[in-house]
Amino acid sequence: MQANVHRLSMQHPGDLGALAALFDSGALAPADVVAVIGKTEGNGGVNDFTRGYFTFALATLLSERLGTSRSDILKRIPCVLSGGTEGVLSPHYLVFERRRSDGSAAPPAGKRLAIGVAFSAPMLPEAIGRRAHVDAIAGAVEAAMRDAGIDDANDVHFVQVKTPCVTVARAAAAQARGASAVSTDANRAMAYARAAGAFGVAAALGELDRGALTDAAMLSDTTLYSSRASVSSGVEVECNEVIVLGNSGRWTGDLTIAHRPMCDALDLPAVTATLADLGITAAPQVTAADARRIRGVLVKCEPDRHGAVRGHRHTMLDDTDINAQRHIRGAVGGLVAGVMGDGRIFVSGGAEHQGPDGGGLIAVIAEI
Amino acid sequence: MQANVHRLSMQHPGDLGALAALFDSGALAPADVVAVIGKTEGNGGVNDFTRGYFTFALATLLSERLGTSRSDILKRIPCVLSGGTEGVLSPHYLVFERRRSDGSAAPPAGKRLAIGVAFSAPMLPEAIGRRAHVDAIAGAVEAAMRDAGIDDANDVHFVQVKTPCVTVARAAAAQARGASAVSTDANRAMAYARAAGAFGVAAALGELDRGALTDAAMLSDTTLYSSRASVSSGVEVECNEVIVLGNSGRWTGDLTIAHRPMCDALDLPAVTATLADLGITAAPQVTAADARRIRGVLVKCEPDRHGAVRGHRHTMLDDTDINAQRHIRGAVGGLVAGVMGDGRIFVSGGAEHQGPDGGGLIAVIAEI
Amino acid sequence: MQANVHRLSMQHPGDLGALAALFDSGALAPADVVAVIGKTEGNGGVNDFTRGYFTFALATLLSERLGTSRSDILKRIPCVLSGGTEGVLSPHYLVFERRRSDGSAAPPAGKRLAIGVAFSAPMLPEAIGRRAHVDAIAGAVEAAMRDAGIDDANDVHFVQVKTPCVTVARAAAAQARGASAVSTDANRAMAYARAAGAFGVAAALGELDRGALTDAAMLSDTTLYSSRASVSSGVEVECNEVIVLGNSGRWTGDLTIAHRPMCDALDLPAVTATLADLGITAAPQVTAADARRIRGVLVKCEPDRHGAVRGHRHTMLDDTDINAQRHIRGAVGGLVAGVMGDGRIFVSGGAEHQGPDGGGLIAVIAEI
Amino acid sequence: MQANVHRLSMQHPGDLGALAALFDSGALAPADVVAVIGKTEGNGGVNDFTRGYFTFALATLLSERLGTSRSDILKRIPCVLSGGTEGVLSPHYLVFERRRSDGSAAPPAGKRLAIGVAFSAPMLPEAIGRRAHVDAIAGAVEAAMRDAGIDDANDVHFVQVKTPCVTVARAAAAQARGASAVSTDANRAMAYARAAGAFGVAAALGELDRGALTDAAMLSDTTLYSSRASVSSGVEVECNEVIVLGNSGRWTGDLTIAHRPMCDALDLPAVTATLADLGITAAPQVTAADARRIRGVLVKCEPDRHGAVRGHRHTMLDDTDINAQRHIRGAVGGLVAGVMGDGRIFVSGGAEHQGPDGGGLIAVIAEI
Repeated sequence: MQANVHRLSMQHPGDLGALAALFDSGALAPADVVAVIGKTEGNGGVNDFTRGYFTFALATLLSERLGTSRSDILKRIPCVLSGGTEGVLSPHYLVFERRRSDGSAAPPAGKRLAIGVAFSAPMLPEAIGRRAHVDAIAGAVEAAMRDAGIDDANDVHFVQVKTPCVTVARAAAAQARGASAVSTDANRAMAYARAAGAFGVAAALGELDRGALTDAAMLSDTTLYSSRASVSSGVEVECNEVIVLGNSGRWTGDLTIAHRPMCDALDLPAVTATLADLGITAAPQVTAADARRIRGVLVKCEPDRHGAVRGHRHTMLDDTDINAQRHIRGAVGGLVAGVMGDGRIFVSGGAEHQGPDGGGLIAVIAEI
Repeated sequence: MQANVHRLSMQHPGDLGALAALFDSGALAPADVVAVIGKTEGNGGVNDFTRGYFTFALATLLSERLGTSRSDILKRIPCVLSGGTEGVLSPHYLVFERRRSDGSAAPPAGKRLAIGVAFSAPMLPEAIGRRAHVDAIAGAVEAAMRDAGIDDANDVHFVQVKTPCVTVARAAAAQARGASAVSTDANRAMAYARAAGAFGVAAALGELDRGALTDAAMLSDTTLYSSRASVSSGVEVECNEVIVLGNSGRWTGDLTIAHRPMCDALDLPAVTATLADLGITAAPQVTAADARRIRGVLVKCEPDRHGAVRGHRHTMLDDTDINAQRHIRGAVGGLVAGVMGDGRIFVSGGAEHQGPDGGGLIAVIAEI
Repeated sequence: MQANVHRLSMQHPGDLGALAALFDSGALAPADVVAVIGKTEGNGGVNDFTRGYFTFALATLLSERLGTSRSDILKRIPCVLSGGTEGVLSPHYLVFERRRSDGSAAPPAGKRLAIGVAFSAPMLPEAIGRRAHVDAIAGAVEAAMRDAGIDDANDVHFVQVKTPCVTVARAAAAQARGASAVSTDANRAMAYARAAGAFGVAAALGELDRGALTDAAMLSDTTLYSSRASVSSGVEVECNEVIVLGNSGRWTGDLTIAHRPMCDALDLPAVTATLADLGITAAPQVTAADARRIRGVLVKCEPDRHGAVRGHRHTMLDDTDINAQRHIRGAVGGLVAGVMGDGRIFVSGGAEHQGPDGGGLIAVIAEI
Repeated sequence: MQANVHRLSMQHPGDLGALAALFDSGALAPADVVAVIGKTEGNGGVNDFTRGYFTFALATLLSERLGTSRSDILKRIPCVLSGGTEGVLSPHYLVFERRRSDGSAAPPAGKRLAIGVAFSAPMLPEAIGRRAHVDAIAGAVEAAMRDAGIDDANDVHFVQVKTPCVTVARAAAAQARGASAVSTDANRAMAYARAAGAFGVAAALGELDRGALTDAAMLSDTTLYSSRASVSSGVEVECNEVIVLGNSGRWTGDLTIAHRPMCDALDLPAVTATLADLGITAAPQVTAADARRIRGVLVKCEPDRHGAVRGHRHTMLDDTDINAQRHIRGAVGGLVAGVMGDGRIFVSGGAEHQGPDGGGLIAVIAEI
């Protein structure tokens, strides 16, 4: 198998023109699309409908090209979007292509980018953010690793999870059944959903002991984290969608992936170290030539919950006007984009248990 | 004369406790305070009252320590605040101290930090953002240079201007007199006020030909800019306040200042180059030891008006929820703080004619 | 002809389930849908993509039911959405149905609701908010009156216009052609577009003399207004779409429409007077029985540009956190919903030249 | 004793000019000021510093006029501010005056406005939003009733409480002591603080059985509420401040107060019924003559937690851009201001257990 990643821009959340053009030119076969990860320009919160809009437009395009229904598309191809292009971030999406190698070329000497996907069953609102959610996601990650042909969990560098959130309407539906959602506060419930996702990834990758991943530990024991999990939660999905990215000797192609945890929102060395793993020097900025080798930058981050970064008070958590996740995406996005010289960075807030407390993680996909 | 800069944190916009403690300990004499520049945690817009709150509290503290009235304090000591601590930015203020040298020590070999201040007459609302405003500010900058004992404009590295803005009420007052404000849109009028400030600085420093600085050029001819002007506009002042920072052989002390223009919001090399001018290496981040030498970081920036940074679309200008200046402060603040390893960065948006179009400038004060 | 109005709720901006159910049940034939007016839950600003999302989903549903393309649907059926359901406002949409009468019933004694629609040619970005825009809209209103079979402009009670706005990208495209947009400030440009729309309606209805409707008068001479124009401007359309609502003796059905100008944001008497025109008493609130007769409530409003309502200062125009249009929609929506006892009110901000300065207008559709 | 209420406007949160003018003219003696309730134009959330700014400025003015320290003023005169003047709401403050009657006039036939105040001891962060908080507030309400000379709790019509909230910094301080705050989410913790305040009032007035007012009931059992409690929570106070307003035969003066619970955000009849209690007819709007009799309008409200008002979905709770409290203040403020024909309405969000679930309450002070 051969993996490829297309980094495409959009003019608005319903604009799939760049992907349609790839299809039209023959550069990409619609049937070879296995996953999409993107940043749309909504607010990234409960009422961010840019994710649903993009997803609907993507499903419509693929259904027209593949002659199948929108719902069939969405049951097969994870489309994981993070809303919020604060600051210099640029709306864009990564289209992951999996192409059958023609076998004519000699296999590459080292490991190359491998892609696997999986879906869980739909989640009930009352399960979201609880242990059953963790187990559902762990199972989906294992399935995606099998799909990617990755045996060794150490070869996994990034796991993207998209998981449903609890809206007021869904919480009411649960209550009508006699069940209760993990929180009636919509933003809080989204945080629990992300925590469950991170725990599920950590369980599947063997990063954490499954016994420790209790309901009580979620959003509470911050020493428990995955360095490779990226979880988004949104109103537009009802089941867990998983994309596993790693390196594998079974895959051909000219891409690889590397990652690092980020210890806090100022962890510039983690960014340059990840690039160094890929043979790219940023002194202080990636050169234009190297920038063209980079195919995707994926970052998770969060506002430090103690209200300070390296001893200095920040105001993100006390701001009633701008959601704290919007603040941190803008700041970390500005830092990483400055190193890359490029605003097409997937930066997702809500990094509960995804990287060190108050920090997050970064993964970069680049040509060899 | 000997200059010193105290970088102090605050718990809220009315908290002057750290300054009071310096007074109480004798480390700083109240009469030696000549200027204050700070970042408060408001929204940085027309209705940001954190600036006025801090100013009122500062004036109250100094009036109590110096036995003079609040209004006398505010007529003598420029207090220039920029609202908005988006992302990792930390609310803080720089207290500029000017102390008479005791003459016992030999003068230093090179130039050291010099500080000068000046005030203009009050501005009428209808003058704001127009040529008369430019001239008033240019005069104040020249006065502040004289106050600093700087003869050569090349020795000036940073000029902070605080200038009044046009509120709806002030515009109505002008109209009642038969005059009209430069714009009835409050945010637009603030932009004109900042443009006039930048032109005034450029005129005084000889960066631009005065003949070019017309009403029509403001917010229009973006090739006209100062690389050393930083202008804030707010509801809480009625006259122009100017602080000139430079290096001078007449001053003792152990601080110097350097600056660079920033070509865009991703101009990481400008940050490291400014540090290099001060003998500080960031590879990629300033070391803890060097970080302790840094006494102040001052940045201006703005969202690129063409809607793209290095060819990639940004969404700052089309966002109805978050003001574009809040976006850009968060992003550039994240970048600069990442290099410094410290969130105490004065980042001010609204860089019209302050640095290259779509960019801005940075100045750093550090120990020799 | 017989007019009907279906007031339907949605769970999110892409949810057309209620309309699909009407189609499925046979209560409404897809071919009889002539127009849609709705309120979606975006921010109502330049980056409100909920309007585009709803429109895309509506076009998809109708194209599937009618066996025609999405673009054909959108060229024939005006879909006019206003974003922003601040406060108690409830996301909903009005589906306007035009059914051929079977001729079996005797014609009604009085005039009944009549509906007409029209589209203009696409607008260039540089034409938006200028006199050419006014003329294009006036022509479309006249065409819609003919479509409705209304000869006397006095029988028109509400004209909804949806018109394109200038985004940063569109302004740049115009500039690349050597043309310039009416304003580079996105919110300002939207205001000009709405002004042009109001002037176009006033011209067509004979409310204002065409000679007075100059470029200079737009957003400037507030004595010029239409009492029946409601204009929205958004990124998702490229031509002007017009819906005319009035009463006509040629139409059967059991609905009528009435309207009143609102003199300011506190004009509660205008609301009760409009209801009185329809034979409905609110003392102080519409009874549950009468509430069931009401099929649609359409309101335009705006924050008073002088910064005060009835002599008391408001803060809408100086708020950097919340757009002034969001403020006023929430306030006037709360007032009208309180009278109706129902949050399904179409309240659209941006009432430049639509009703008296600082006020707006209200129209109500109810059963006889 | 004789009570009077002065309704004053402000130009910004630090503007006490109208009060200073009353002092200067002799219309009000500084020593007769017993309490202040006001609406400032901040966001009403954790980072609303307009409340602290106003309080600091008020304390400064009174300390200068009374020759005592700012802290002595603030320990004696409750200054209860609610941030947020969304929509048509106008920044203003009510100054409550208590003047010793000269005894020359005959006592009035009926009951007249009576005012009492009280302060509790400072609250520890970990006590906030828990049962100890309830008891502290109940004690303060009883003290304020004694201060007002009101024996019968039925004569109390409005109790304003200002109580501290938990900021991130305060929560960290508690944690450092081994204690934990009721919630680490700042907005959630504010809600708990308001709940405790409401329970405290209900206990003191005998509206609810004290045994029912448990930690578990707070923010949970919505059948428990006070119809006369109005609670604000903010960063700027450390102890509970209480103002009791009622009618008493022991007081002279020409003012009375009435109140009603509001069953939901559309409860227009509750507004007109309260006015009717005072002999004022709104049909539909208060006449200009009657409007001059009104001295203060005090409203509490909240977004319905079930996500719907009278069966129609609202979007306040799912909005990541605008806090739900800002939404509801704007909507209910618009409704009440429409009835009064005046935007000077004190509308405070966060009505947990203050009035019926999803509703709130209204109190009006007017001349006989």
